[in-house]
Amino acid sequence: MSERIWTAALVVIGDEILSGRTQDKNVAQLATWLNVQGIRLAEVRIVPDVEAAIVEAVNALRARNDYLFTTGGIGPTHDDITVDAIAVALGVPVIVHPGARAVLEGYYQTRGGLTDARLRMARVPEGADLIPNRMSGAPGIRWDNIFILAGVPHITAGMLDALTGTLEGGLPVLSRTVGAWVAESEIADLLGATERAHDGVSIGSYPFFREGRTGANFVVRATDQATLDACADALVEGLATKGLEAIEGGI
Amino acid sequence: MSERIWTAALVVIGDEILSGRTQDKNVAQLATWLNVQGIRLAEVRIVPDVEAAIVEAVNALRARNDYLFTTGGIGPTHDDITVDAIAVALGVPVIVHPGARAVLEGYYQTRGGLTDARLRMARVPEGADLIPNRMSGAPGIRWDNIFILAGVPHITAGMLDALTGTLEGGLPVLSRTVGAWVAESEIADLLGATERAHDGVSIGSYPFFREGRTGANFVVRATDQATLDACADALVEGLATKGLEAIEGGI
Repeated sequence: MSERIWTAALVVIGDEILSGRTQDKNVAQLATWLNVQGIRLAEVRIVPDVEAAIVEAVNALRARNDYLFTTGGIGPTHDDITVDAIAVALGVPVIVHPGARAVLEGYYQTRGGLTDARLRMARVPEGADLIPNRMSGAPGIRWDNIFILAGVPHITAGMLDALTGTLEGGLPVLSRTVGAWVAESEIADLLGATERAHDGVSIGSYPFFREGRTGANFVVRATDQATLDACADALVEGLATKGLEAIEGGI
Repeated sequence: MSERIWTAALVVIGDEILSGRTQDKNVAQLATWLNVQGIRLAEVRIVPDVEAAIVEAVNALRARNDYLFTTGGIGPTHDDITVDAIAVALGVPVIVHPGARAVLEGYYQTRGGLTDARLRMARVPEGADLIPNRMSGAPGIRWDNIFILAGVPHITAGMLDALTGTLEGGLPVLSRTVGAWVAESEIADLLGATERAHDGVSIGSYPFFREGRTGANFVVRATDQATLDACADALVEGLATKGLEAIEGGI
């Protein structure tokens, strides 16, 4: 039952996230996609458009995870410094990738031509491969276990789509959510005891206040369906002994 | 013109964010609030409910920022380990705070009484003060330059509200947004040159695809209003010379 756990980290690059201007959507999007690949998102760092900050985060996280993803900063403007910073982190030069140049030449043929600014989007750390971008011109970049993706969520989504099934992973984490109209503090002991009684399972407790009432959703997670169900069933039973109705799927 | 820049970091604690189940809202909320206080959100880490991960992030970030905030993991259940982990990071014991105990006794007087599980929410790293929670019972915690806040966004908001005006900061960052229906790659040179010509200003470029058209918003940021306007006006003029209408406030 001791599976190898595959992990990934994400570096979100962009002043717009740290200023509060833009609500990040790539953390949740990548996490959900990774889980289907059998890979767990282990940690995330959000850093500004500053080379030293990107270098530090990339080198810290790629060393201790199977995969590293970055989002943001691969466009054509002066604040797009991701490729240069990652090349510094890797100790390799930046080159113009012939395949990326060809992609951009095709894309911009009817859109005003491949200017110098646009050619910036063909620059990659030496040794990189391309990740197809079906939504717009500029491709994503793969360098060993590092995946350099766009920041605009629907473009990121297209790049993840292109990567689906290509990464080695383990068992996806299965989950079952049970809700109840109860303050989590009333059943904290039940939750802890139920988790401890089932190896390989975690139970998360997420309280909320809705319609003037207190409730909570309990997310049971495991990689094995039978283990998951045994634990979730025990939780439902435990709630019932306290007179609480468990709502499958959550509230 | 060389202002001291005050910085803060945020550690978001919670498996639910890393699993993709919950969309984080506290990064944007804290960033916006900090900016009004004259403090910049310099970096964010999202870590799981794992003591070692919390300890590492807290100690790395508190050392190099004026303030450190955490969100999440301060409830009554077994997966709420933030207080214990931060106490380990600080090398101090966890104690029951008499004031927090009194708050919880009052809050739960008509809600079934103060059980052991609920009393967990009165535990703090020794030496801590409380942050009022006007939305629910359990208070937030302040320990020197560390602010330990709830994870549920509207409770976090109430705690930030209680802290408004109490933190020393510098000048808030002012911003002006200008939009145009243009591919950012067409005006990348203009953006870079305009930023370089104005000290103390940054220009962010945020492309989008909407109504079948390509556009971008340009966010000009500075702490001085005159500097900000000089740069933004130059950008508007530069766009006009290319036949592009600048849309104030962005698209």
